[in-house]
Amino acid sequence: MNKLSAVRTARIETIASAVLSVATPGEGLFEITRDVAQFLEQNKARHGVVLLYLQHTSASLVIQENADADARTDLVSALKRLAPADAGWAHDVEGPDDMPAHVKAMLNGVSLHVPVTAGALALGTWQGIYVAEHRARAHQREVILQFLGCCAR
Amino acid sequence: MNKLSAVRTARIETIASAVLSVATPGEGLFEITRDVAQFLEQNKARHGVVLLYLQHTSASLVIQENADADARTDLVSALKRLAPADAGWAHDVEGPDDMPAHVKAMLNGVSLHVPVTAGALALGTWQGIYVAEHRARAHQREVILQFLGCCAR
Amino acid sequence: MNKLSAVRTARIETIASAVLSVATPGEGLFEITRDVAQFLEQNKARHGVVLLYLQHTSASLVIQENADADARTDLVSALKRLAPADAGWAHDVEGPDDMPAHVKAMLNGVSLHVPVTAGALALGTWQGIYVAEHRARAHQREVILQFLGCCAR
Repeated sequence: MNKLSAVRTARIETIASAVLSVATPGEGLFEITRDVAQFLEQNKARHGVVLLYLQHTSASLVIQENADADARTDLVSALKRLAPADAGWAHDVEGPDDMPAHVKAMLNGVSLHVPVTAGALALGTWQGIYVAEHRARAHQREVILQFLGCCAR
Repeated sequence: MNKLSAVRTARIETIASAVLSVATPGEGLFEITRDVAQFLEQNKARHGVVLLYLQHTSASLVIQENADADARTDLVSALKRLAPADAGWAHDVEGPDDMPAHVKAMLNGVSLHVPVTAGALALGTWQGIYVAEHRARAHQREVILQFLGCCAR
Repeated sequence: MNKLSAVRTARIETIASAVLSVATPGEGLFEITRDVAQFLEQNKARHGVVLLYLQHTSASLVIQENADADARTDLVSALKRLAPADAGWAHDVEGPDDMPAHVKAMLNGVSLHVPVTAGALALGTWQGIYVAEHRARAHQREVILQFLGCCAR
């Protein structure tokens, strides 16, 4: 039997937006949980939701296991199996890692949200927020953070 | 030619949040559409949007076909093909179903939204909302529901 | 080192909703960026976020590369590799393209958001918004657009 908790209600007042620039050193998952938490603190965010949006087509946003680094390595190889470099892609002008990167970005997506409760990200125990870089080389990636809710400054 | 309907505008007043606890018996898709509808009713939600967030890394949220149970079976086997247990994962301390579960959760995602119109979920005819359990054993899964919009209590 | 920009704050006042009907000619990615921009203009949307929700289980929403048409062709073939028609699906009453379409829709998802800044979609340079049709035949697809933010009419 599923169970619903008591409901907590807050007013929605403002939307606070900022851009987080993330320097990725190459393929892999790079955690931005602390950056997002810092954005909430700066805005005295209390109750609401934070929306994340990545402005790119060859990287993506992922919520995943933040404990064992092996898990991140496996996630990267899982994506490589799903979108291998040697699949005979038509779009290959930007190099063999480009089209696989687009496929991986499509599968993972570039937009997600996390609830905010009492000023903190309501992540599960093992959850971290990551920018997944799918290109081989270093990139600068922009994530738009938006807090909707109560008591933003 | 694409066509845009008339626009309906409502005020945004409140954000109502609750946690839905879902007991999953093991691998599979488990529908929570009625639980989400009940959350909206309790809050006298009229116009707006409901955000769903799952606090786990080995389960996910899916909107899919709610008519034929075979479709759900096929979705589970499709995911098994994409993330097989015997792929030689580095992260295997929690058992052979653990790393595949993380991969499936990454692909499906843990955050989504559904519009709310005149007090009802604006789902398509064949759409249901599901918690997808990717682990073999039973688990307790927490979904944070948030209604943003008009006329929550 | 990651860097956070200055924060811009606006009031949230209204939620404006409309339905965009998209006629898809068959399998492929069909751009709706201009339709979404037009929805924002009509509502004099300035700062906030637009939520998109697709009411179907065999099509999906994707943000992807809008420059080279080859990239879209490759995205379609990538999905075909991940969910082939001849995988021995149990659910096959609606034809061999039906169950693969459900799998592709599950992987891509049917809900996403894009930030709105100064009246414009805050898309990256190469990003376009697409309805991905996964069925072989033409369909009519409904996308619910919702603008949350400031200065909607």
